[in-house]
Amino acid sequence: MPEIVFRRLALIGIGLIGSSLARVARARGDIAEELVVHDSTPAALARAAALGLGDRYEADVSTAVSGADGVILCAPVGAFASIAEAIAPHLAPGAILSDVGSTKQSVLRDVGALVPAGVHFVPAHPVAGTEYSGPDAGFAELFEGRWCLLTPPAGTDRAAVARMTELWRRTGAMVEEMDAAHHDRVLAIVSHLPHLIAFTICGTADDLADETRQEVLQFAASGFRDFTRIAASDPTMWRDVFLNNREALLEMLARFLEDAQAMARAVRWGDGSYIEDKVNRGRKIRRSLIELKQA
Amino acid sequence: MPEIVFRRLALIGIGLIGSSLARVARARGDIAEELVVHDSTPAALARAAALGLGDRYEADVSTAVSGADGVILCAPVGAFASIAEAIAPHLAPGAILSDVGSTKQSVLRDVGALVPAGVHFVPAHPVAGTEYSGPDAGFAELFEGRWCLLTPPAGTDRAAVARMTELWRRTGAMVEEMDAAHHDRVLAIVSHLPHLIAFTICGTADDLADETRQEVLQFAASGFRDFTRIAASDPTMWRDVFLNNREALLEMLARFLEDAQAMARAVRWGDGSYIEDKVNRGRKIRRSLIELKQA
Repeated sequence: MPEIVFRRLALIGIGLIGSSLARVARARGDIAEELVVHDSTPAALARAAALGLGDRYEADVSTAVSGADGVILCAPVGAFASIAEAIAPHLAPGAILSDVGSTKQSVLRDVGALVPAGVHFVPAHPVAGTEYSGPDAGFAELFEGRWCLLTPPAGTDRAAVARMTELWRRTGAMVEEMDAAHHDRVLAIVSHLPHLIAFTICGTADDLADETRQEVLQFAASGFRDFTRIAASDPTMWRDVFLNNREALLEMLARFLEDAQAMARAVRWGDGSYIEDKVNRGRKIRRSLIELKQA
Repeated sequence: MPEIVFRRLALIGIGLIGSSLARVARARGDIAEELVVHDSTPAALARAAALGLGDRYEADVSTAVSGADGVILCAPVGAFASIAEAIAPHLAPGAILSDVGSTKQSVLRDVGALVPAGVHFVPAHPVAGTEYSGPDAGFAELFEGRWCLLTPPAGTDRAAVARMTELWRRTGAMVEEMDAAHHDRVLAIVSHLPHLIAFTICGTADDLADETRQEVLQFAASGFRDFTRIAASDPTMWRDVFLNNREALLEMLARFLEDAQAMARAVRWGDGSYIEDKVNRGRKIRRSLIELKQA
């Protein structure tokens, strides 16, 4: 492993994740010798420059990746296909192309097919985030103690996987490899479905008659307040996540809706022991999380 | 208003809410001259005594309320009917009977009818809590800056309402009066439905195949972790809340399930603008909460 992971690292997108990666790279100094920043939104790119997040700021994405030995897509996953098309001819031989997208089968589909021979494709998903977005929202400690899941296609150069592993370890993340399809199922239940539910219940509350809606805001107890925190995340990112993990998300949502209907039935018919059993399972899972130090 | 709100205050139940009330009463000294503690669970009562939460500890509920000018039911709402039956003949004339239950129509139904003439019935609901339970879980600051909703039946003695208002103000709570039926609808959406959903999704995850379930725990992103925190609450309390706010909870759950089905349809058919609109409504509600300083 080289002392510095990449000679020139290009970050394509400088939102919450991209700007956090830029900050930790600048803070440590051993992730990239040169950091090139691109964003398709001129205001975000100008803000990144004002914050001093990179060494160079490129409005043109093909210029941004030229000569880079590391390229990481940090845009919403829905933009990956057109980005891949634009950058593919400009990727340097031997370069590593990676990303931070929350859905991994879609990345294989949208980006994998366009990767030129001689470029190593190592998709990644740092499982970290906050409800804030944009270049100001990032911070160098975002990935500390969090997982970063790599989903390299079969046959990917092991040295390239080792370099991406090293990059994420240096951000403080714990790295694990996983099959893309399995990744998408696990993330559907731990992250995508909870977000879909949180967005939905905020909409349900927003549809209530005016008087009640005002009181919903006034008396938001801890339950609803926690849901609104989850629901405050970036709309474009989440739209893209839902649409790009459709199959797994719909399967988990169908299972959840069946279970919610069963709870409704238990409430209607006064089946207290069914309800208690479900509440106890929630506690059991919470205890398991605490034992695994995830809580 | 007397300098001390109650001469002898009896707390019937010494869990999270009861023990928090006991702690703030002892810390301030101007809520009750004498604090009598009862709990139907001998271990909880012994623990309350070990913690020094009251002045007297009574295993017999009728003895606990005898001679008290204030009685507050701090047990799960499902136990209220039998408690009311046991204590009604022993309530002192002029005493105030109150409670801390999360459902208020059920309290009017289960307790209201049994209140003897000359006893003032002022139901209350401090909208505060944590995912912990039992006498050790309480703390004196639990109610600070939180709402306490009073739902006195029409015609209740205004001096009695004023005394309960003063008690809750002294805990640091903001007090508001509300109709019981309206209370139950508002709480169904801000608290009861979010808890039902959190319990349900933990069950859905727990039902997944063994391998995936292990990874659900391992990779729990912020979304799922927040749900498990909500889902860690007391099983008996929540069973009773669901069963005692059946109509409003089922209505809100039906609305939510319709909205979740509409989200499922948008995901299936790739309706990105529908999804973005829902995410944006979540953000809007979050911003409103922040403006109201509830976040």
